[in-house]
Amino acid sequence: MPARQSPPSSRSRVRRLPAQASYERADIHAIVDAAHVCHVAFADDHGVHCIPTACWRGGDALFIHGSRGSRMLGALLKGGPACVTITHLDGLVLARSAFNHTMNYRSAVVHGTFELVADEDKAQVLDLLVDHIAPGRRPAIRGANAKELKATDVLRLSLADASAKIRRGGPKDDDEDLALRVWAGELPFAQARRPALVAEGCAPGMPGEPLWWVPA
Amino acid sequence: MPARQSPPSSRSRVRRLPAQASYERADIHAIVDAAHVCHVAFADDHGVHCIPTACWRGGDALFIHGSRGSRMLGALLKGGPACVTITHLDGLVLARSAFNHTMNYRSAVVHGTFELVADEDKAQVLDLLVDHIAPGRRPAIRGANAKELKATDVLRLSLADASAKIRRGGPKDDDEDLALRVWAGELPFAQARRPALVAEGCAPGMPGEPLWWVPA
Repeated sequence: MPARQSPPSSRSRVRRLPAQASYERADIHAIVDAAHVCHVAFADDHGVHCIPTACWRGGDALFIHGSRGSRMLGALLKGGPACVTITHLDGLVLARSAFNHTMNYRSAVVHGTFELVADEDKAQVLDLLVDHIAPGRRPAIRGANAKELKATDVLRLSLADASAKIRRGGPKDDDEDLALRVWAGELPFAQARRPALVAEGCAPGMPGEPLWWVPA
Repeated sequence: MPARQSPPSSRSRVRRLPAQASYERADIHAIVDAAHVCHVAFADDHGVHCIPTACWRGGDALFIHGSRGSRMLGALLKGGPACVTITHLDGLVLARSAFNHTMNYRSAVVHGTFELVADEDKAQVLDLLVDHIAPGRRPAIRGANAKELKATDVLRLSLADASAKIRRGGPKDDDEDLALRVWAGELPFAQARRPALVAEGCAPGMPGEPLWWVPA
């Protein structure tokens, strides 16, 4: 995958294996859209933290949410710089030498400062999360009430300062190793789902049933 | 999952949903052993970073590696505090209300300071990585030579100051929502693999053929 465009900032420039870097909106959006979880790095008085949390995209921004008063959201809203990373591991790459083993992946690293989503926009942004988790199901569920909305903070991070890194394909062995009598290739992962498990007290055929979730 | 043991330090104490926390060695080791990638958070002059990288375990320590001279390893070896997080997303949990949606997961958060693995121990620790990626295959591949070992730094992070957080099971709906006519339950993910892809120029039946990798 050739490098495309220019990095939006010095801190987003990929130094290691830059040929795998992309700064294209489409690549970054696709990586965010394929994710349910991101890792949020930030610093506070106790040092550096890296916390996994649900994420979703709207426009050119990534959103996270949490309980009002949570430690992470509080630290992020103090305005310090954050870094959010999403990684999809697509497979292991087995080379003929130990050194040339690698992995196939798609990752996005976003630098920036989170901002609080205003109360009047919160419900609409949270709808995007429900649609991301289970598209088409939102009309069937009970929406958030005023108390629940008040207890929830939603934070927005611009995707303007982001980089993607993507590796695909088989091993790149040294020429002198190609004759070795050893297997080489890719072990791809599958993004599969097991059949849905219905909750107790919920009859089949209910509205919003996730009939579209079938094992791959 | 009830809280067990005590947190090893204040910075490792889980504040949010502490009933899902565990500080048991066995839980933390199992989460690390199930991972191929961790997210490393650290700070340098440009701010906070969160970088995905390969990881593996040996004893009560987590290891990462990289090219000597890489920006991340250089920053980590300056001795600043780091935070390493591993997250396995096991499923989406669909409740009867938007607010009670959640996810099932197993995550481990490790705080500490990385240290450089000594040259004389490096080969042995890197063997653990090859065994982690493809158990039983190491005797068939070419091991690292002196030049490759010299080009690679391996870093060790103690797992002494770590916490795990684990959620399993179905949605926890509010009592007043249980009568709603809407589907509720879990959408579990499967850790599946697709069939191995053989590299160009590599005949089937080679030693080390990953016959043990079959789609789940």
